[in-house]
Amino acid sequence: MTNQEQTIGRWISILYRYGQLYVSKKLEPYNIGRAQYVILLALYRKGGIKQEELVDYLKIDKGSIAKSIRKLEKESYIQRSIDLDDKRANKVFLTQKALDIMPLVLDAIKNWEEIIISGLSEGEKQSIENSLHKMAKKAYDIKTYGEENIK
Amino acid sequence: MTNQEQTIGRWISILYRYGQLYVSKKLEPYNIGRAQYVILLALYRKGGIKQEELVDYLKIDKGSIAKSIRKLEKESYIQRSIDLDDKRANKVFLTQKALDIMPLVLDAIKNWEEIIISGLSEGEKQSIENSLHKMAKKAYDIKTYGEENIK
Repeated sequence: MTNQEQTIGRWISILYRYGQLYVSKKLEPYNIGRAQYVILLALYRKGGIKQEELVDYLKIDKGSIAKSIRKLEKESYIQRSIDLDDKRANKVFLTQKALDIMPLVLDAIKNWEEIIISGLSEGEKQSIENSLHKMAKKAYDIKTYGEENIK
Repeated sequence: MTNQEQTIGRWISILYRYGQLYVSKKLEPYNIGRAQYVILLALYRKGGIKQEELVDYLKIDKGSIAKSIRKLEKESYIQRSIDLDDKRANKVFLTQKALDIMPLVLDAIKNWEEIIISGLSEGEKQSIENSLHKMAKKAYDIKTYGEENIK
């Protein structure tokens, strides 16, 4: 393993975890933890979706999603609704209370991203965005087509 | 919010989550989930440490760490040991069983990192490594010195 490869993966983990810490600290007064704001954000982007779709979309395990949904429900940030055509399709939605605090969630994320890239030049920003895009595409391909078909 | 900033943060989240998914899939036969291999890796790098230090090092909440530690203990991957000088200092260590599978864990991580950067040129690899380093440094500074002191 070259040091470079090891380093890129570690920086990504560190940035991800520090980012979650930063955003959830800003949302602490609203009883929204780091496992929860990710769900609020997904529901905000996708609209009302089924719990299983959330598992697939977020790549977080079923048990953790269920626990966070219960917590968000208790705090009245989300509500469940039964689809009349398919009673098993228990969808979750943001409540008005959640919609009211979404600007704060989005602002916290925006601030975080602005701060961490503030030390980069325009060229560096462009370059890292291109590279991360290529890497994410590769990650998606592995997941979708299998490792043996894309290597 | 410019589209670029939004994108960099999202790619980082996607890469992190897909990476965890990839590695934990490889470790499924050993009953090691994604929340657990991160702990094994930390203990491998840091040696025996206290549960609270693990919380601080990994930036993962106390409850989740405790749950994963119980699971790892049940599978005999880690053991607790009492420090004779400070009986409250309950440290956790890797067992021989864990040490035996560490090469697999490290290999899975190495493979993942090799695959995702395989589409980048040497120049792009160098550039992204530098940029991620700068960003992680900024993230660390925010956490350590407070946002108002580094902006």
